[in-house]
Amino acid sequence: MIIVMKPGSPSTEIERISKELRNWDITPEKTEGTHKVVIGLIGDTAEIDPRQIQNLSPFIEQVLRVKKPFKRASKEFRYGEPTDVVVPTPNGAVTFGQNYPLVVVAGPCSVENEEMIVETARRVKAAGAQFLRGGAYKPRTSPYAFQGHGESALLLLAKARSATGLGIITEVMDTADLEKVAEVADVVQIGARNMQNFSLLKKVGATGKPVLLKRGLSATIEDWLMSAEYILAAGNPNVILCERGIRTFDRQYTRNTLDISAIPVLRTLTHLPIMIDPSHATGFSEYVPTMAMASIAAGADSLMIEVHPNPAKALSDGPQSLTLEGFEQLMLELAPLGKFFGRWTQNNSATATLPKFAPRISSTAGV
Amino acid sequence: MIIVMKPGSPSTEIERISKELRNWDITPEKTEGTHKVVIGLIGDTAEIDPRQIQNLSPFIEQVLRVKKPFKRASKEFRYGEPTDVVVPTPNGAVTFGQNYPLVVVAGPCSVENEEMIVETARRVKAAGAQFLRGGAYKPRTSPYAFQGHGESALLLLAKARSATGLGIITEVMDTADLEKVAEVADVVQIGARNMQNFSLLKKVGATGKPVLLKRGLSATIEDWLMSAEYILAAGNPNVILCERGIRTFDRQYTRNTLDISAIPVLRTLTHLPIMIDPSHATGFSEYVPTMAMASIAAGADSLMIEVHPNPAKALSDGPQSLTLEGFEQLMLELAPLGKFFGRWTQNNSATATLPKFAPRISSTAGV
Amino acid sequence: MIIVMKPGSPSTEIERISKELRNWDITPEKTEGTHKVVIGLIGDTAEIDPRQIQNLSPFIEQVLRVKKPFKRASKEFRYGEPTDVVVPTPNGAVTFGQNYPLVVVAGPCSVENEEMIVETARRVKAAGAQFLRGGAYKPRTSPYAFQGHGESALLLLAKARSATGLGIITEVMDTADLEKVAEVADVVQIGARNMQNFSLLKKVGATGKPVLLKRGLSATIEDWLMSAEYILAAGNPNVILCERGIRTFDRQYTRNTLDISAIPVLRTLTHLPIMIDPSHATGFSEYVPTMAMASIAAGADSLMIEVHPNPAKALSDGPQSLTLEGFEQLMLELAPLGKFFGRWTQNNSATATLPKFAPRISSTAGV
Amino acid sequence: MIIVMKPGSPSTEIERISKELRNWDITPEKTEGTHKVVIGLIGDTAEIDPRQIQNLSPFIEQVLRVKKPFKRASKEFRYGEPTDVVVPTPNGAVTFGQNYPLVVVAGPCSVENEEMIVETARRVKAAGAQFLRGGAYKPRTSPYAFQGHGESALLLLAKARSATGLGIITEVMDTADLEKVAEVADVVQIGARNMQNFSLLKKVGATGKPVLLKRGLSATIEDWLMSAEYILAAGNPNVILCERGIRTFDRQYTRNTLDISAIPVLRTLTHLPIMIDPSHATGFSEYVPTMAMASIAAGADSLMIEVHPNPAKALSDGPQSLTLEGFEQLMLELAPLGKFFGRWTQNNSATATLPKFAPRISSTAGV
Repeated sequence: MIIVMKPGSPSTEIERISKELRNWDITPEKTEGTHKVVIGLIGDTAEIDPRQIQNLSPFIEQVLRVKKPFKRASKEFRYGEPTDVVVPTPNGAVTFGQNYPLVVVAGPCSVENEEMIVETARRVKAAGAQFLRGGAYKPRTSPYAFQGHGESALLLLAKARSATGLGIITEVMDTADLEKVAEVADVVQIGARNMQNFSLLKKVGATGKPVLLKRGLSATIEDWLMSAEYILAAGNPNVILCERGIRTFDRQYTRNTLDISAIPVLRTLTHLPIMIDPSHATGFSEYVPTMAMASIAAGADSLMIEVHPNPAKALSDGPQSLTLEGFEQLMLELAPLGKFFGRWTQNNSATATLPKFAPRISSTAGV
Repeated sequence: MIIVMKPGSPSTEIERISKELRNWDITPEKTEGTHKVVIGLIGDTAEIDPRQIQNLSPFIEQVLRVKKPFKRASKEFRYGEPTDVVVPTPNGAVTFGQNYPLVVVAGPCSVENEEMIVETARRVKAAGAQFLRGGAYKPRTSPYAFQGHGESALLLLAKARSATGLGIITEVMDTADLEKVAEVADVVQIGARNMQNFSLLKKVGATGKPVLLKRGLSATIEDWLMSAEYILAAGNPNVILCERGIRTFDRQYTRNTLDISAIPVLRTLTHLPIMIDPSHATGFSEYVPTMAMASIAAGADSLMIEVHPNPAKALSDGPQSLTLEGFEQLMLELAPLGKFFGRWTQNNSATATLPKFAPRISSTAGV
Repeated sequence: MIIVMKPGSPSTEIERISKELRNWDITPEKTEGTHKVVIGLIGDTAEIDPRQIQNLSPFIEQVLRVKKPFKRASKEFRYGEPTDVVVPTPNGAVTFGQNYPLVVVAGPCSVENEEMIVETARRVKAAGAQFLRGGAYKPRTSPYAFQGHGESALLLLAKARSATGLGIITEVMDTADLEKVAEVADVVQIGARNMQNFSLLKKVGATGKPVLLKRGLSATIEDWLMSAEYILAAGNPNVILCERGIRTFDRQYTRNTLDISAIPVLRTLTHLPIMIDPSHATGFSEYVPTMAMASIAAGADSLMIEVHPNPAKALSDGPQSLTLEGFEQLMLELAPLGKFFGRWTQNNSATATLPKFAPRISSTAGV
Repeated sequence: MIIVMKPGSPSTEIERISKELRNWDITPEKTEGTHKVVIGLIGDTAEIDPRQIQNLSPFIEQVLRVKKPFKRASKEFRYGEPTDVVVPTPNGAVTFGQNYPLVVVAGPCSVENEEMIVETARRVKAAGAQFLRGGAYKPRTSPYAFQGHGESALLLLAKARSATGLGIITEVMDTADLEKVAEVADVVQIGARNMQNFSLLKKVGATGKPVLLKRGLSATIEDWLMSAEYILAAGNPNVILCERGIRTFDRQYTRNTLDISAIPVLRTLTHLPIMIDPSHATGFSEYVPTMAMASIAAGADSLMIEVHPNPAKALSDGPQSLTLEGFEQLMLELAPLGKFFGRWTQNNSATATLPKFAPRISSTAGV
């Protein structure tokens, strides 16, 4: 941090400020120019609010933050080396990371019953997904809306896991449920509305389970990385960042605005892997394929796609869910683009072995 | 909710949609005009997502919500009668409500030690506050920032309560701490970042303790009332809404943007009492008096003001805290305005008996 | 501006950067600390983009702006002295300024015909307004909406001026119309959508006519002051700033969000007088009185209120217009508050000298 | 538009409203259900403000817009047929449209001198651009920043056009300059800050010249299409929409937020071609290549890229400009992706035949 003193500040005042700062365990380093005195602050300034220093004296012209407030989440912390989040699943370890193939996560907003979740798991696996998403506990704006089947839904996710070998990603909303959720989940999700539920972040950080941290509706990139920092600082290095749309002034035709430039920006700031959720970002299934394409082109490490066997009857978020067929079709369209960028795995192209889709694939293979 | 069909929609399709809706326990009511068919939906549509109905058929032109999604929070629910939230405190019951005097809540961001919190309580009481605010659990953007003294701070708040008789308002961040917090707090606060922590809302709703519900950083008025609805629907009618600034594109000179028109808007929508927190809204103590004035003129039922014996050394949010003297001065300035609007209580003017401020008061008394 | 070099930056690189800066007519002033080198920039840095300096070398850690980019609009430019914008009108000079009574501007969105504009002028004058607003050229989102009667409306405004002696405020949208508008207008208005129409700002600046500069829908305080700077730099010191609501994520219950804290913030930054337009800010006449109250309490120097003889039939913006009776009633309510703050003029209280409010009040009582 | 009456509205009131509406040349069509009465409005409702109808009676529960307010810009207006904007250039006609190859527009923010603009034109042409952009009149936030060389810059653009045969895109800021600009420009640009400068839109609409309409900083999709509607309604069908980033709460790491989902949304609403400007959207050249990739994947019809021979010395917007080499490299990277999507023209890959770039190309050819 840097303090810029007003021209003509008395040296006694500069002395007084410097003394005060030393009480805060910070080493002030005065540098005098012809016109201005600047005080550099050496030490751990991450927890200091610049406005607090400003308050010290009316002779302070401005207090400027130089260092970023996040450490463990910063690219420098790993000397530029990206983090690979390796998640063991019954089908083998899957790695989220910028030097690995795109990981596809698919499934319904909510787990509704055994048949639908197991069937969905089978179909999305066949189409190339490596993880099944599905909500047991659902954050809903209205108390009268379906709130998720809770614990019983966790059991159904476990069944889908056994049946298919897919890893499971599901959300935890309450610290009281963390243990139960972590038993079933291979990746524990923190939803957008809980991104700054710091109690939850700390407790999830204390587990060690991989965490999917969704960006809050109006969280800046820095807020988001600071929330990741909570988890990292609690000792859990396995954090995946998920952009799912931010809230802007225009909400007429999309639910949120997908901030796709977050991808290159995060690449310059952090080593953590990046997932994009085009379903929540747009709120309409018809926009999902285009945004999935754009996300791959922008370098996303993972995609989360909502899929439901019968979106029209989904208990939540049907309008943004693809049908099973829609998802299969999407994967066939994404495959050549994923390969183009060298980010498509054998696993993703599992579909290639399904005879019924074969012709379609060979036709796109020539692209 | 109303469904508008596209011109020329086949009647079989309208029949099919109507049948589907009946399965959802909704009575569709078709009204045919010369050019268009409109289907009105009778029944409990609060939990239905309009996008979900849209999905039912490509012949649907638009689905329009007519009723508001909140019920218990709506003005109609109490036939226009405002809610008075009566909070028992050692000094007697204090009522938050639009037909009652302005309730002033004051105190530091964080409880730091016994001396500071008891001294602050004494001084803000003498100046006319009826409640002491003070954080035991602090939501902080950075994991490296002071997180509050937790349980031991709750004990100090209890001491300040005994010493002064002031009611206590403090925040709960984790369902696991709710019982402890509710033992000390006269009003339990849900912070802006937890406004959509639905687990917490439900559990706070189950207690019956008065709840102060702060508006989320990017929560619409409707989102906010839906969060209040969670608490009301859980059986707790004692909810106070607190506007504390929203996040906008301009964050250079204020921390947030105080949405003061929320006051008249809420008056048309809900029966719940309204508090304004100008300290968090602006982020700078120098703007607090002006915004407190504006809030009173706009009809706020309560004000929450951050006060600290030594803002320059506050462990959190010093820059937005008034000094004790600053707060005393502010109360003297607010008193005539509060009286002007008929919203100032005997209690608030306790200061009038302090000899040192007497001349000032008598000078403003003539206004 | 200040350049912070990365630790360990080679001195040759620092030399190279300094040399480059001297080419830009800036004097670099190097200050070396133990850990960091900081380069202060002396000279006219207002027109330099910090990102441009950042580009000079990869060894630059950060470039920080210290000085504000506006000069003539800054409080310092007038050594803290507020600007009084004195506008000659047939009824005598009216002054907009923080040491003067509140100036009330009232009138319809659009000038529709002679009868309505003259009648409105008479009634708002009698109720205490000093200026008549009325649009001749109307910026409308839709090309199919009423665009204003243009030149013929200017003539009607001139008639209303002659008939009542009120000053006229009307908008100019096109540099081609400036001369015609300036002939009739006592204050020329730049609308929110043209706040960064820099050609228009320059030409209006070249006139010398008082200018009302509305804040753009998503203009930061700094953007807004920079637009004022265009007018001031062109030689016209008579600028009045008008806050009329900003665009935020919540647009369901109000058209815009009135940023009332802009008042105290502007007071710390600029010497220019401040007007509030609660009609455009909220978009609904029912919220106007409350927001007008709040604006006075926050220290506004002027209010702009939309008034129409028959809002239900207004050609534009009817829903946010008060009726003539509604405006008269509002003025009676504002008068005591204006007096409370010592900001109410004889002129405003023209009504006050009418047989003691009683008849007028009883006449509106029946409304 | 649809009017929903409150339950129990008196039939005389419904009659009164219907009569009023007929005066507005609208045919009201009452449809009575068991619980509610709904009035459908037949006729030209595009210019009616729903708030205006709401004002007609306190018995109106809600007024709902069904039809979109834009007509000529709507997809339906051309029965789903996309518009192809064909622009004659010395090198032949270039078509902007969704069934045509991607059109690349490149060049500096400002025209600085003959050498730089002609050299830039030559190099971007060789790399595959079909249009040269370059500002003669520059909208700048600060009056002290470089404002463009104006008329003399137009002459230099004409020289660059002659020298290379590239089409010219340049901005008009003032109706007074339109004629001069239109003489040189093949496509006239309306900048973001003038998107709702309706006078300018009308006059540009009256020319017939192809128009590039940039989206305003806080313009909704609907606002933007309504501005296009101004141009179309004035008789000019040649409008290209350009998304260049919107203003959001997070402005720390990017200048604006590129709203890439505007592409699929616009495809469902309008027939007009879509350009993306990743340079202004992000504000930093390092993010431009990634965002250009994402734009192609999302289906953009055109890209506008800022290029400057020496960004560090650019008179404006240097930080977001690619170097000439950077642009050449980018085009080599975009070519395979453009071909992948079948949107790359012979022209774009002109570079492939230039011997000096051969090695570079052959190395990327294997991608």
